[in-house]
Amino acid sequence: MSRTKQLKLGAFMRPVSIHTGAWRYPGAIPDANFNFPALKKFIQKLEQGKFDAFFMADHLAVLNMPVNALKRSHTVTSFEPFTLLSALSTVTENIGLVATASTTYDAPYHIARRFASLDHISGGRAGWNIVTTANPDAALNFNLEEEIEHDERYRRAREFYDVVTGLWDSFADDAFVRDVEAGIYFDPDKLHVLNHKGKYLSVRGPLNIARPVQGWPLIVQAGASEAGRQLAAETAEAVFAPAGNLEAGKALFADIKGRARAIGRDPDSIKILPGALVVVGETVAEAQAKRVYLDSLVHYDSGIASLNSALGYDVSGFDPDGPLPEIPPTNAGHSSRERVIALAQRENLTIRQLAQRVGSYSGLAFVGTPQTIADEMEQWLKEEGSDGFNIMFPYLPEGLNDFVDKVIPELQSRGIFRTEYEGTTLRENLGLPRPANRFFESERSPAVI
Amino acid sequence: MSRTKQLKLGAFMRPVSIHTGAWRYPGAIPDANFNFPALKKFIQKLEQGKFDAFFMADHLAVLNMPVNALKRSHTVTSFEPFTLLSALSTVTENIGLVATASTTYDAPYHIARRFASLDHISGGRAGWNIVTTANPDAALNFNLEEEIEHDERYRRAREFYDVVTGLWDSFADDAFVRDVEAGIYFDPDKLHVLNHKGKYLSVRGPLNIARPVQGWPLIVQAGASEAGRQLAAETAEAVFAPAGNLEAGKALFADIKGRARAIGRDPDSIKILPGALVVVGETVAEAQAKRVYLDSLVHYDSGIASLNSALGYDVSGFDPDGPLPEIPPTNAGHSSRERVIALAQRENLTIRQLAQRVGSYSGLAFVGTPQTIADEMEQWLKEEGSDGFNIMFPYLPEGLNDFVDKVIPELQSRGIFRTEYEGTTLRENLGLPRPANRFFESERSPAVI
Repeated sequence: MSRTKQLKLGAFMRPVSIHTGAWRYPGAIPDANFNFPALKKFIQKLEQGKFDAFFMADHLAVLNMPVNALKRSHTVTSFEPFTLLSALSTVTENIGLVATASTTYDAPYHIARRFASLDHISGGRAGWNIVTTANPDAALNFNLEEEIEHDERYRRAREFYDVVTGLWDSFADDAFVRDVEAGIYFDPDKLHVLNHKGKYLSVRGPLNIARPVQGWPLIVQAGASEAGRQLAAETAEAVFAPAGNLEAGKALFADIKGRARAIGRDPDSIKILPGALVVVGETVAEAQAKRVYLDSLVHYDSGIASLNSALGYDVSGFDPDGPLPEIPPTNAGHSSRERVIALAQRENLTIRQLAQRVGSYSGLAFVGTPQTIADEMEQWLKEEGSDGFNIMFPYLPEGLNDFVDKVIPELQSRGIFRTEYEGTTLRENLGLPRPANRFFESERSPAVI
Repeated sequence: MSRTKQLKLGAFMRPVSIHTGAWRYPGAIPDANFNFPALKKFIQKLEQGKFDAFFMADHLAVLNMPVNALKRSHTVTSFEPFTLLSALSTVTENIGLVATASTTYDAPYHIARRFASLDHISGGRAGWNIVTTANPDAALNFNLEEEIEHDERYRRAREFYDVVTGLWDSFADDAFVRDVEAGIYFDPDKLHVLNHKGKYLSVRGPLNIARPVQGWPLIVQAGASEAGRQLAAETAEAVFAPAGNLEAGKALFADIKGRARAIGRDPDSIKILPGALVVVGETVAEAQAKRVYLDSLVHYDSGIASLNSALGYDVSGFDPDGPLPEIPPTNAGHSSRERVIALAQRENLTIRQLAQRVGSYSGLAFVGTPQTIADEMEQWLKEEGSDGFNIMFPYLPEGLNDFVDKVIPELQSRGIFRTEYEGTTLRENLGLPRPANRFFESERSPAVI
């Protein structure tokens, strides 16, 4: 059956809004990141909208910000991903549950077991967002004096992935016979002991849990560095990497799919889903005004620290309501400085407005009517900028409800988004195959344990 | 108000039955350890019976048994505790949720965060069973060549406890002001950075989650060794240690409460809850017959390995249906060998029957009618053998339903067990205080975050 290519949609939900001003927006739930009844309503609304997945970022430290910014941040407290997603699995039926977990500060036996358990409890809806945790403060919480170097973290991540997927394959899908009469619970010939001894990890196995419903939970990757893109091409099935505009999206899409093709993978088996903030209005002007108002809720103290950091230059001595001065060459990352300066010029922003934008969210955004937003998404899909998006809501519940009630029907009416879930597992909804067990031939394809 | 001393009751639920034959018992659910809908029914029935807590033991490896026994074991696959308990928290309202977590194979930042998250999601019902994981196979799954020595594990556990409780105290109970107008999310003067640097652990903090509803989740300890008892006296609020009979129970009770008193703790602030298998019948003879039948479902291959191990002597060459031969002195633990030989003599068991008992469960058991079981429990309570029990069900759902429907009403009618939960948190139901924050004076006692 030939069919129009379909958008895949995740919801980026930790924090529930990435926007620093979100908790102050009219109608917002100020403690939404940490309010289970509110999160339950959000995920049920996302499921009503047929979203593919609820996506939890994670941090292993209180975020490193100047205290004047930190005290204004609604992200300082939040649930731990596994406890939250497992609880949310009981109040949903179809939506995927993607948790971030670190290959640098955790053990593969724990990670393999927890994702397997979440996959079983949710009936095949778990996904693992593999991160190496680029945060020096996290190292200090985990018995280290300083952070492990970037490329070494990625080498460990690659081995960690091999161990985790090997542990998931500890039991054949049909290992558990549970023959009450004969008193045989499982067939020991269908149990594999991994015996992994590598450069970073030594893990005997087997895992003490049956093979996950999906075979392996979905593998997600978000890194944009050279090492991150290569890890994604080798392992990921969904990529949540930033792409600030369509050109950048096309380049990222081509790069990762090309890398995958080069090592013999089907490029369709990796879904590229950049993050996108979506602000919906009755008119484009109304949507833009909502965003301006939202940005204005970011306290100057929160924004100026981020702006100074992005510029690598302290502009707090200048008039906040005047234009950005000439910025001398600095040690800040060149691309970040150039991007911020270009943004100020393009939108003619004052220092205050720029600080509020940089201190909240300045990445890819679709701001407009349901029609213009759908136009842009359709363009990305058709021009191979992405396979879909990981949607960020500017404020909740309003922004989330707007997306589900107004944008989703528009996407559906264009035939580029589902009206019903295709299957019961996250893999089935994304159109991805169930991995074979590397140690056993499967006798039945849909795993029943 | 003076009131009859009340029994406290936990349910030991991993495995759902500790008895090796349970999955083959008529009416049993063979995959009950790994069946979320079944576990949901079990915990809801326990809550109907006003149980204090659902208790999850844990293992960080497939249990080390000869393959002939392992393949007959229903405990080989099971959910990971946090994912299961968090999911079960959404289908219950009052029952406590106690998870085992290891101080040897995990990091205090993870443990502190996960229990805090479970405590928030469940509204104050989490408990941490501190274990040091006495299982050489677990070491092999966590980058080690061999197990860390027993007393060193306990020294690390003591430091680990200090770090975890210190991390729980990162925020004052009233730190989160969420002042939308002023744009202040929390008061930075109410955030404490732990900066722990000890012999085993270096953890900066703060924890990235608000202080738990209970202040600290309940602290549980199960070790019976010298080091385990001392750790319990210093830290535990509930002790799940084995006591095979009333005399042993009294000795354990006096020892741990005495150790606690010696370091200035109120002995009432530690609840001693030994494990007890309970088999209910219409008559004592019927209950005994049920147990004999259940034991007969243990395959000889499963039992004989355990029996040989307990005796430190291979009796598999003798007639299984004959009596136990004279056992020469061996290297096996003296107490385990003597206990098994005494059991064979006391109940006049054949080698097969003895193997089936030792290979299933040979600890404290109450086998009788609701009245005789309540008599025994009341005697333990009144004679200071324990503060209650961690109940083990011989088979499910029948054994669990029997306890809730028949034994609980008998205990209630004697005035020694609650008819309604006393509070909404596990601590309130156990009559235990909410710990003060060591870094901040609290301005309000029931924590609202």
